Amino acid sequence: MGQDVVNSLFEVLPYLKRLHGKTVLVKIGGNVLSNELSKDFFAKSIAFLHFVGIKTLIVHGGGPEITTLMEKLGMKPTFKNGYRVTDEQTMEVVEMVLNKINKDLVATLNLSGVKAIGICGKDVNFLIAEKDMQYGDIGYVGKVKRINEDLVKWLFEAGYVPVIAPIGVGEDGTTYNLNADVAAAQIAIALKVEMIIFMTDVDGVMKGGQLVSQLDVEQALKLIQEGVVKAGMVPKLSCAVEAVKNNVKSARIINGNDPTALLATLFASRPFGTTVTNH
Amino acid sequence: MGQDVVNSLFEVLPYLKRLHGKTVLVKIGGNVLSNELSKDFFAKSIAFLHFVGIKTLIVHGGGPEITTLMEKLGMKPTFKNGYRVTDEQTMEVVEMVLNKINKDLVATLNLSGVKAIGICGKDVNFLIAEKDMQYGDIGYVGKVKRINEDLVKWLFEAGYVPVIAPIGVGEDGTTYNLNADVAAAQIAIALKVEMIIFMTDVDGVMKGGQLVSQLDVEQALKLIQEGVVKAGMVPKLSCAVEAVKNNVKSARIINGNDPTALLATLFASRPFGTTVTNH
Amino acid sequence: MGQDVVNSLFEVLPYLKRLHGKTVLVKIGGNVLSNELSKDFFAKSIAFLHFVGIKTLIVHGGGPEITTLMEKLGMKPTFKNGYRVTDEQTMEVVEMVLNKINKDLVATLNLSGVKAIGICGKDVNFLIAEKDMQYGDIGYVGKVKRINEDLVKWLFEAGYVPVIAPIGVGEDGTTYNLNADVAAAQIAIALKVEMIIFMTDVDGVMKGGQLVSQLDVEQALKLIQEGVVKAGMVPKLSCAVEAVKNNVKSARIINGNDPTALLATLFASRPFGTTVTNH
Amino acid sequence: MGQDVVNSLFEVLPYLKRLHGKTVLVKIGGNVLSNELSKDFFAKSIAFLHFVGIKTLIVHGGGPEITTLMEKLGMKPTFKNGYRVTDEQTMEVVEMVLNKINKDLVATLNLSGVKAIGICGKDVNFLIAEKDMQYGDIGYVGKVKRINEDLVKWLFEAGYVPVIAPIGVGEDGTTYNLNADVAAAQIAIALKVEMIIFMTDVDGVMKGGQLVSQLDVEQALKLIQEGVVKAGMVPKLSCAVEAVKNNVKSARIINGNDPTALLATLFASRPFGTTVTNH
Amino acid sequence: MGQDVVNSLFEVLPYLKRLHGKTVLVKIGGNVLSNELSKDFFAKSIAFLHFVGIKTLIVHGGGPEITTLMEKLGMKPTFKNGYRVTDEQTMEVVEMVLNKINKDLVATLNLSGVKAIGICGKDVNFLIAEKDMQYGDIGYVGKVKRINEDLVKWLFEAGYVPVIAPIGVGEDGTTYNLNADVAAAQIAIALKVEMIIFMTDVDGVMKGGQLVSQLDVEQALKLIQEGVVKAGMVPKLSCAVEAVKNNVKSARIINGNDPTALLATLFASRPFGTTVTNH
Amino acid sequence: MGQDVVNSLFEVLPYLKRLHGKTVLVKIGGNVLSNELSKDFFAKSIAFLHFVGIKTLIVHGGGPEITTLMEKLGMKPTFKNGYRVTDEQTMEVVEMVLNKINKDLVATLNLSGVKAIGICGKDVNFLIAEKDMQYGDIGYVGKVKRINEDLVKWLFEAGYVPVIAPIGVGEDGTTYNLNADVAAAQIAIALKVEMIIFMTDVDGVMKGGQLVSQLDVEQALKLIQEGVVKAGMVPKLSCAVEAVKNNVKSARIINGNDPTALLATLFASRPFGTTVTNH
Repeated sequence: MGQDVVNSLFEVLPYLKRLHGKTVLVKIGGNVLSNELSKDFFAKSIAFLHFVGIKTLIVHGGGPEITTLMEKLGMKPTFKNGYRVTDEQTMEVVEMVLNKINKDLVATLNLSGVKAIGICGKDVNFLIAEKDMQYGDIGYVGKVKRINEDLVKWLFEAGYVPVIAPIGVGEDGTTYNLNADVAAAQIAIALKVEMIIFMTDVDGVMKGGQLVSQLDVEQALKLIQEGVVKAGMVPKLSCAVEAVKNNVKSARIINGNDPTALLATLFASRPFGTTVTNH
Repeated sequence: MGQDVVNSLFEVLPYLKRLHGKTVLVKIGGNVLSNELSKDFFAKSIAFLHFVGIKTLIVHGGGPEITTLMEKLGMKPTFKNGYRVTDEQTMEVVEMVLNKINKDLVATLNLSGVKAIGICGKDVNFLIAEKDMQYGDIGYVGKVKRINEDLVKWLFEAGYVPVIAPIGVGEDGTTYNLNADVAAAQIAIALKVEMIIFMTDVDGVMKGGQLVSQLDVEQALKLIQEGVVKAGMVPKLSCAVEAVKNNVKSARIINGNDPTALLATLFASRPFGTTVTNH
Repeated sequence: MGQDVVNSLFEVLPYLKRLHGKTVLVKIGGNVLSNELSKDFFAKSIAFLHFVGIKTLIVHGGGPEITTLMEKLGMKPTFKNGYRVTDEQTMEVVEMVLNKINKDLVATLNLSGVKAIGICGKDVNFLIAEKDMQYGDIGYVGKVKRINEDLVKWLFEAGYVPVIAPIGVGEDGTTYNLNADVAAAQIAIALKVEMIIFMTDVDGVMKGGQLVSQLDVEQALKLIQEGVVKAGMVPKLSCAVEAVKNNVKSARIINGNDPTALLATLFASRPFGTTVTNH
Repeated sequence: MGQDVVNSLFEVLPYLKRLHGKTVLVKIGGNVLSNELSKDFFAKSIAFLHFVGIKTLIVHGGGPEITTLMEKLGMKPTFKNGYRVTDEQTMEVVEMVLNKINKDLVATLNLSGVKAIGICGKDVNFLIAEKDMQYGDIGYVGKVKRINEDLVKWLFEAGYVPVIAPIGVGEDGTTYNLNADVAAAQIAIALKVEMIIFMTDVDGVMKGGQLVSQLDVEQALKLIQEGVVKAGMVPKLSCAVEAVKNNVKSARIINGNDPTALLATLFASRPFGTTVTNH
Repeated sequence: MGQDVVNSLFEVLPYLKRLHGKTVLVKIGGNVLSNELSKDFFAKSIAFLHFVGIKTLIVHGGGPEITTLMEKLGMKPTFKNGYRVTDEQTMEVVEMVLNKINKDLVATLNLSGVKAIGICGKDVNFLIAEKDMQYGDIGYVGKVKRINEDLVKWLFEAGYVPVIAPIGVGEDGTTYNLNADVAAAQIAIALKVEMIIFMTDVDGVMKGGQLVSQLDVEQALKLIQEGVVKAGMVPKLSCAVEAVKNNVKSARIINGNDPTALLATLFASRPFGTTVTNH
Repeated sequence: MGQDVVNSLFEVLPYLKRLHGKTVLVKIGGNVLSNELSKDFFAKSIAFLHFVGIKTLIVHGGGPEITTLMEKLGMKPTFKNGYRVTDEQTMEVVEMVLNKINKDLVATLNLSGVKAIGICGKDVNFLIAEKDMQYGDIGYVGKVKRINEDLVKWLFEAGYVPVIAPIGVGEDGTTYNLNADVAAAQIAIALKVEMIIFMTDVDGVMKGGQLVSQLDVEQALKLIQEGVVKAGMVPKLSCAVEAVKNNVKSARIINGNDPTALLATLFASRPFGTTVTNH
């Protein structure tokens, strides 16, 4: 029995070497976080990454819980092109929920042995944002304009695992609701990370009922244009493409509800999920 | 006109020297933060402290806004000996509201030119807490058991202003609602700060309709025992006493709704509010 | 009363932010230093700058005291184009007097709470000079050829306030008498300071009996060419122009005998004296 | 298949946390190093330790190869109480062979991805030795008198894996042949390591044909006194006892020819080989 | 010829090793500095010390030049028990002359290749003094009360050679004339230097026309009590005794007019001058 | 007598200044090391360099001792164009002998007071080599392909004297026998040293029975082409030329059996041996 474990360790050694001292950003969706079991395995996986010397930072979503609280408060969630229409009251709910999810995740991670710290775009002006008008005026929906990389550098130097809520702040102090996938990709690019991993609730990009393991930028764009990739996967794949076109070495889309997926995509010889690279 | 300003600068110089490089903890109550004007002056005052080389950290409350949201959600706030009875649902509301207030305050401070960062007791296990049973079982009400001072040291080294929400975490990951005044005093003691300042909504300790400017520990305890000090001021004054008995040089209780009070208590020759010292 | 002080502090906050961490060079004339009251206010002003985080360095003159000692020794001071004709004996007197003034000023500054250190161009070869022949051979009058910036960097790192006597040293060890205004400007340029302030015994540049508050390079040169600016102000204004043409952001000429002038020019909304900028 | 690997990683996580940042000394015998396969697995195992953040240092033996070269040179190896009688000529052979083995092992380790550096007791006077007379005069056989810990600290700071040949140097420069097990234990004690592991060619301490998994100091000494432990295992077990009596937390004796033993003893829930602890 | 030089280098090697990285304080008298040749050899000797890694600091006197300037100014030097009676006017002359000598010596040292910096007790409050009343009120004669060791530490860290004028400053800013030998000994003690060397104008302590090479504290005190040692040598020898009684390893008294004496006392097998040690 | 020593110290002062803090590489041949007296003087000379602040690194050969051991083992040394034909068995002998010589030299140096550390090209992959085919296939003879400068930087930072055995390692782990002169020159170039010194067993480059003191690149190449320089001196002089053509300021060829030569070439006004410079 011990031998099997050791053989596994020998098996992951080459990947360990390659990633040692590198930075990996993991985006985890609200759906995955709602699943307690998935969250626990996620925390253990992050702890593993941390203790083998990979600098890890996490961006999370929180859609379902936002919707739940809005409904409790008698508010009616509306969406436009997948973006939540965000009036002032909604923004308050978004901020409350995301920060709570953020600190919950921090506590779960800390139980697994790391030293996580929860931040949002307001902290030290980490994510300076501006109003996003690409789909018209949908309220306090923002896009990242500038990232204060110093914050993450300090937190890494202290040995901490940054956990980031996708909230931005305008230069005038306005709070903005950010798309978590887009923010994750922009942070990954600004920090020149080695890899960005999107943890969602499907196994990756599917084509004809089959998982597509490997995509270059061209292939990925084609799948989007031809409509093979649909719905929620479109923005994820677009973000993956954006990242690898801007010096992130590799982007992965994996199933966050598979407890082994995160470590498997990093350490198994045949990575789980879909891998997007620049060529 | 310029001369007046300069004369003021000469006047504050001795206090500037004395506090330069020292650490000051400011506890600001939820009532004060609800007042936009007070919040703005608070931010400007903190910026002043920061730019003259005083290391500042902030602990805030949030009672009124918690009650507001609970009511919106159809929940009924209950108190026992001034402590909020905190069941699981309440704890969720507390955490959401406090974190939102926290990040709002961070954004306001950053607009004034400092680099604030919002943390709660869960971050890097900053405030390890345990259930507080002094008034029987009132749910997830906790008291601080251990403080991770490293976090604040790192944030100061980075030049950041830490803003702390009074939420604790148990060793098993349980979330606890902390009394902000008590937590502030405990943090002040653990970090060996020079001064702790309680910003509340009255001018200080009153006796016979008059402000009491100066109290030593004995005098303060006597005022409490004799019932001169009442209601919400009792825990504040007790916390002040606790702090100065444990190596905090000075504790102050001032009126947070007086826009000049914070700087005046630090820099005016006759300090505003009530000052408590060890002897 | 306390409120007035605090209002002043709020008023200076924007200037505090702008100058925090920046370097300011103050040139103070011998006339001003002869005035004990002015010297004391100068020391308090420098202490204020120091304690609000502005890196300050001081260059001083000493003309009147040099003349006094020469006369006591039966020597006859001679000047050419405002420069002191400096034979070997005169150079000895200059060096003795300037170093004494230097250490006196250091002691006065230290009484105000800073840690001042007195240096001249000989220390660590700080000011390498060569003979200045622009007005013919007037003896050991020199001009700066090269500055050893490391010395000031080390002193700033130690948290010291450097006080500089305008004495240079040739590459062969010869001692040179430097014009303090010119040396100040050259040091300001070499150290890329934010601002140079000339403290003299008049209110600034005068035109038709009125103070000129603001001048750009072109305007300043015109005032000199047209003879509006005369006598001792000409070299000061020329030095100011030279400084701002070489990346010093702003040069100021103020009245050192006005006790509030130094802080007022830095922190009042309408700066005292004359401000020269590049455009 | 990927899942199995990931499950193994989850399984080793607690051990990873416990050993992260700690120092482990591995003593590897000459017999094991003679086996190319064992050496390769050893290198991979050390690489794993290195990349998961365990500071590793290695002490090796070389008996069989010394004997081989002596015989080629027509010299006759003699032993007394298990120690090699070491005249001047023998000492030269010992030194040549051990240094060659040392640098060979360094090269093998470097192929596996670490940065190993080979040192002996002469380097920076790492192992100051004196003549060992416990079994009479058997020539240049020495025992460690003093260890220069700075060398190892510098090498760890550089991120290197030190590989140590058991050669000592007298204060007069004399070369000494050291017993590798004894030297390993002394180095472990001097450097306050977490764990010392003796890799030999049997599975551990045997009793009645069965492996003894766990021994405290008393039990270990009893096994020696009662003669249950015999021959080459006696000094190994004595060294293990000596180490744990002097603040090394744990000593292990494992089979170096089992390719999985090193990682298994560190990361499997039921450690391989024999574990000796202080109580 | 080259061989002779090299043999000398081999000869000094043991002393080089012993003094490498250590601190040596050299007190040089005003008489010696008046001699240009002696001053040049002094500078070359100090350069040698600096470039072989000995941290050197210098305290100088200036008696003869002070007297000269006083006479030029029509003042009458008076002494009491070897101390200069120092009224306010005299203090001004003392300060002017000492600072000039100080900066002259700095320039001479810098010509020899080191980076010297001249300081007096006023700089960064290096020598806090108080009035010395041991021989009654003789004006501004002071004794050292407290030394700010940080200044010298910073200057050594910058690689500079501190040159110290014996001027002290009271806590109220008063200037004090210090005895250079006494100040040198106190600085040596405060900085825990390895060796203090007094460079005077005789060969050392004489007894019956013969140089005494070696003295312990008891012998030295006996020579003073018995009147064998007289006049100016008494305070020097007393200072030497004071130094070695307070952890300075060795004190030397040598002839500063012998160009080779400084290096010879440090590097020759039979040290020049008189050596005082604690036993 | 003391005076002579001191005069020598004054004489070497200018050279001391020039070399202080610089790096010097000394190549010492196997012939010189075989001479115990030469080795002792070498150690003392290196100690002198070390204690006067010159960073020193040493590359050594070992030809004669390799031949001796091969003969003892019944092997037959063969050479081609001055290179040792190196089959696998020979390589083993080379490695054993060079590492022994290396650690012997380390011990001798440490006796003289420095902290030497012996390394070869395998340590931290210091010298990555590849097969050298310039004279056909002569076995495991290699040439340096890449140097890991970090190792030397770390050792210098620790204050150690690196002693380098000319053994290289292929990217596949193969051991290579390197020409010590060539390796020394390549290391000197990679580390941008100030000076490389070849210590051989003749006085330098001879022409018509006379030592040639000074050569520029052109002159040196001419002497080689015209056959004036012969045999073993050809590769040394070629290496010297290669070094000075690649930013090494000066190369020297001296007689290692003259005990004063090393210090004399560095510190005497008329350097010993032959000096090669770029023009």
